[in-house]
Amino acid sequence: MLPFARVTIIGLGLIGSSIARAVKEHMPTVRVTGHDADPGVRERSRGLGFCDDVTDTPGAAVTDADLVILCVPVGAMGAAAEAFAADLPPDAIVSDVGGSKESVLKALRQHLPDTVIIPGHPVAGTEHSGPEAGFATLFHRRWCILTPEENAPEAAVGRLTVFWEKLGAHVEIMTPRHHDLVLAVTSHVPHLIAYSIVGTASDLEDVTRGEVIKYSAGGFRDFTRIAASDPTMWRDVFLNNREAVLEILQRLTEDVTMLQRAIRWGDGDTLFDLFTRTRAIRRGIIDQGQDDAAPDFGRRHD
Amino acid sequence: MLPFARVTIIGLGLIGSSIARAVKEHMPTVRVTGHDADPGVRERSRGLGFCDDVTDTPGAAVTDADLVILCVPVGAMGAAAEAFAADLPPDAIVSDVGGSKESVLKALRQHLPDTVIIPGHPVAGTEHSGPEAGFATLFHRRWCILTPEENAPEAAVGRLTVFWEKLGAHVEIMTPRHHDLVLAVTSHVPHLIAYSIVGTASDLEDVTRGEVIKYSAGGFRDFTRIAASDPTMWRDVFLNNREAVLEILQRLTEDVTMLQRAIRWGDGDTLFDLFTRTRAIRRGIIDQGQDDAAPDFGRRHD
Repeated sequence: MLPFARVTIIGLGLIGSSIARAVKEHMPTVRVTGHDADPGVRERSRGLGFCDDVTDTPGAAVTDADLVILCVPVGAMGAAAEAFAADLPPDAIVSDVGGSKESVLKALRQHLPDTVIIPGHPVAGTEHSGPEAGFATLFHRRWCILTPEENAPEAAVGRLTVFWEKLGAHVEIMTPRHHDLVLAVTSHVPHLIAYSIVGTASDLEDVTRGEVIKYSAGGFRDFTRIAASDPTMWRDVFLNNREAVLEILQRLTEDVTMLQRAIRWGDGDTLFDLFTRTRAIRRGIIDQGQDDAAPDFGRRHD
Repeated sequence: MLPFARVTIIGLGLIGSSIARAVKEHMPTVRVTGHDADPGVRERSRGLGFCDDVTDTPGAAVTDADLVILCVPVGAMGAAAEAFAADLPPDAIVSDVGGSKESVLKALRQHLPDTVIIPGHPVAGTEHSGPEAGFATLFHRRWCILTPEENAPEAAVGRLTVFWEKLGAHVEIMTPRHHDLVLAVTSHVPHLIAYSIVGTASDLEDVTRGEVIKYSAGGFRDFTRIAASDPTMWRDVFLNNREAVLEILQRLTEDVTMLQRAIRWGDGDTLFDLFTRTRAIRRGIIDQGQDDAAPDFGRRHD
């Protein structure tokens, strides 16, 4: 039994186009309709052929949908919902893939007061953007977090759970607030630090940008991957998950200050203890299939 | 023409055992002798067979060497040199692979006052440690930085350059001080931040360690790779490159504070501008062959 028959994707970037491809691969009889606000993206998506239909207006995309997934930057969610609200069938379920959930739920609810809204967030991605960057296996063995309101109909949550499981994901349910805190730690602050360190390195007077690039294999290059992610998407995440990001950032700053002091005073034990403890986390991530055990993430050494 | 006929490796971990394997692959007629202070590592290295001979004492390892490379943590360099100084042939060249160069040069010079010392640092590695972790292609297309003293004999620098080039590396010459600053940016501070953020995440009260592991694919897992590197080696690097690390850390802290303020005040333009600028650095790293252009560093998506 398929949970939905007609799925509409609004926003055909990395995540939207990956969902479309994954639906086609795992539920080939489901009709997938897509729309993107950018005419160029619509045209490229038609050429790539991962949707049955790409419509020129958001209204035309949702008109017979039973599931609509918004795959736009979190700052654009409200406007995207407003643009198709008048054409949305009353029994359609609306979901999204945004990286912050309290703000998105609020924005969607404002324009869709009577719709069943089940915010979602597949914790998966790459540093590439656009419809060409998507692929059907992006969600395999990744977690998708759903953050339904307290009064959300159980059956709808169940259908969306089955949908994501069919795309290869594991599903977890939590409150929007807890999601925002968890993701601040596991995703938002790491991205902010990566962006920041790459910026710092490129602004130095005594070390050239060429040198930074040359010697990046010493560790720096790991940071540049996530610092190459979509700028609009990430700007919106930080502006929309402000409190949780600032809270975690404050904790991190304290911890960095402690290490800074340990280095200044030559306190090797504090450094050694932390550096030993962090190996266990890496092992947990590999044991649970969330990363590759091969050295360098499996980068080629030829 | 081979630059050296008898190469001795002191310290048979990831880097030392990789050099031994690479010499065997690229210069099979060169005799490779190894020694490690740890009897267990000596025994495992004998079993792995990447050296022609693994000696029980450092003196026996260097007795007929024309190149000795120290591959021990930077805090152990002085003691390692002292241990073989009496047995070192007067015309042997001594080098090393340590991550900081001013302190290493000082430590080696103290115990080897009349030897030709050419400190080196191959900017390559993985998060794994020990003789089993090494492989012959580790240095392919990576940079090896040599930091000779001003009065170092040119011929010796030339021979060591050819040696590293035969292992597949590009060689660059710079002063120890400049090396230490460049590596603070491209390697040491990234490692410190990675260790720190993994520590912060594992200490939170409101987010469990299990949640951090589960949702690590959102970005966090990239940090855990380098935060799984050898604790002793990294403790020593920070204690021995203190000034440069503290200087870069101070710059980074200022830049993070600026982003923190931008988030607090809702200044999206500052965020967007930085997030756009950082993509260029990533492109440079890929264009120059220092990282994989495939999404997720080429991690498998099955």
